[in-house]
Amino acid sequence: MPALPARPLAPVELPSLEPKRILRLEDDRVVFLDQRRLPDEEAELACRSAAEVAEAIKELAVRGAPAIGIAGAYGYALAARRGEDLEQAFEVLVGARPTAANLAWALREVRDAADPGARARELHSEEVERCRRMSAHAARLVEPGSRALTHCNTGGLATGGQGTALGAIAEAWAQGRVGHVFVDETRPLLQGARLTAWELEAAGIPHTVVADAAAGSLLASGEVDCVLVGADRIAANGDTANKIGTYPLAVLAGRHRVPFYVVAPTSTVDLSTPSGAEIPIEERDPREVSSRFPARNPAFDVTPAELITAIVTELGVHRAPFAESLSGAVSA
Amino acid sequence: MPALPARPLAPVELPSLEPKRILRLEDDRVVFLDQRRLPDEEAELACRSAAEVAEAIKELAVRGAPAIGIAGAYGYALAARRGEDLEQAFEVLVGARPTAANLAWALREVRDAADPGARARELHSEEVERCRRMSAHAARLVEPGSRALTHCNTGGLATGGQGTALGAIAEAWAQGRVGHVFVDETRPLLQGARLTAWELEAAGIPHTVVADAAAGSLLASGEVDCVLVGADRIAANGDTANKIGTYPLAVLAGRHRVPFYVVAPTSTVDLSTPSGAEIPIEERDPREVSSRFPARNPAFDVTPAELITAIVTELGVHRAPFAESLSGAVSA
Repeated sequence: MPALPARPLAPVELPSLEPKRILRLEDDRVVFLDQRRLPDEEAELACRSAAEVAEAIKELAVRGAPAIGIAGAYGYALAARRGEDLEQAFEVLVGARPTAANLAWALREVRDAADPGARARELHSEEVERCRRMSAHAARLVEPGSRALTHCNTGGLATGGQGTALGAIAEAWAQGRVGHVFVDETRPLLQGARLTAWELEAAGIPHTVVADAAAGSLLASGEVDCVLVGADRIAANGDTANKIGTYPLAVLAGRHRVPFYVVAPTSTVDLSTPSGAEIPIEERDPREVSSRFPARNPAFDVTPAELITAIVTELGVHRAPFAESLSGAVSA
Repeated sequence: MPALPARPLAPVELPSLEPKRILRLEDDRVVFLDQRRLPDEEAELACRSAAEVAEAIKELAVRGAPAIGIAGAYGYALAARRGEDLEQAFEVLVGARPTAANLAWALREVRDAADPGARARELHSEEVERCRRMSAHAARLVEPGSRALTHCNTGGLATGGQGTALGAIAEAWAQGRVGHVFVDETRPLLQGARLTAWELEAAGIPHTVVADAAAGSLLASGEVDCVLVGADRIAANGDTANKIGTYPLAVLAGRHRVPFYVVAPTSTVDLSTPSGAEIPIEERDPREVSSRFPARNPAFDVTPAELITAIVTELGVHRAPFAESLSGAVSA
């Protein structure tokens, strides 16, 4: 099925993080709400070079594919202002998070712009608008009164806008379509337990944090009506790389016939990657899992397209065969 | 298929925890290796009443269905020596862990014995022997050079003997059947990352800790050849309650055609529970998951029999239909 035609959507007043509070470009620095310190502390982190922005991305002070894209763009714009070696700045930034397609895309956008700073701010505004549109499209898929399950953090913090999957959940909640949200804590870095719960609390949306391994029994007992997740990269065939633990959720949702939605901007769709097998999976520092024993720490996994009920972008709802619905929409 | 006939098994020298180091009954106290403080510290906890033993079980100073059974028996024997109200001691102890079938069984055994202390020590020796037998039976199912995945802790710490699933893994390693062990960290209490890794390190068995949510992609990428887990209660039809996260593993193993084995003593089999639907699932303190946001903390989930390749007890290997193979073996 091709993407739905764009149509005017009724505006809904949503409690959301102010985009500039999440990240912004100032004269001589890029400023982030430091996500490592949430929910205990709402502290800002200022980066004064492209290398410092890359470090902030690596250290997860800023995270979430769309927000990383904007962060990279701001970092490049800062490098341009400071007269840094721009080729080197590009390389340092693009290498900070190899799985995220948005980062490379956003960096190319600012590199090719006459005014990198203006283009970076424009990308941020466009992301805010994309979030609004994809949230509205996705919210319409949710049955009234649903109990939604989500993984990782895909809200304002992850996007610089109102969010992807969590933006859709917030929109659906404002419309009475979502009644309760189950939040996977999302080990090892607990983006769900720290960031998603913090955003839901701020928005006044009822929520419950669970261990990642508990989602299976919630699905088995019929306590979850839909699963919504974001994406770090979507291959041309619809296979989707997202935070580690997404694939098991999709398998379990499939077994229990619960719809499984991926909500992500078209900048996440990478038509040059034919399938999930070609998506590089970042292995992070094993000490995030165990500082005492040998460990492995793959940051992402790949959910095959066959397990995805629909992929929702700012352009609309894409269904199988995704090779068709995505290429039609993204190249359009 | 009925259980295999008991037959002499070649003895294998196994590195294992001394049973008395894990838990023991002394004149006026029950002493545990305090599992809450591992792996940082090897400290003992002494309990001087049935209520203190019940508290140690609740607080997970001692854990694992078979070890809890022995702990309860030692606690009851201590109560008898101290002249405590034995009916009350029984109730306090049996309520400490409602999902574990072994606890109620062991408590009935010591209650009905002429000398509760002697019977409790005998139960411990019997558990050591049961572990030895079930490990030998299960190890024979593992193909040479396998990479095994396990969840939670089912070793010496969990049993007072050499373990159930982890005992089998250690036995299979000694025989060259297991080459590497992947250990789910097992949130929220990290029994895998803290206890299983500690036991494997002590035994010199190569191992890697992973986040629970990472097991799915390991199975998808063909890096796991078999999954071995323990059980807290096995219903008459083979449905198995075990640590939260076991059910998702079984679903994923099934999808990737990786054998999924449950290793547990017959004392875990509860023929009076017809199926998993009748197994009470303990909900633990949500603050174990999040102290900052609303949370839920189911401690166990139920794996339907259809996802289990075989259940291995001290009597042998039981296969589907489990209603037949289990009732034949357990009532024998």
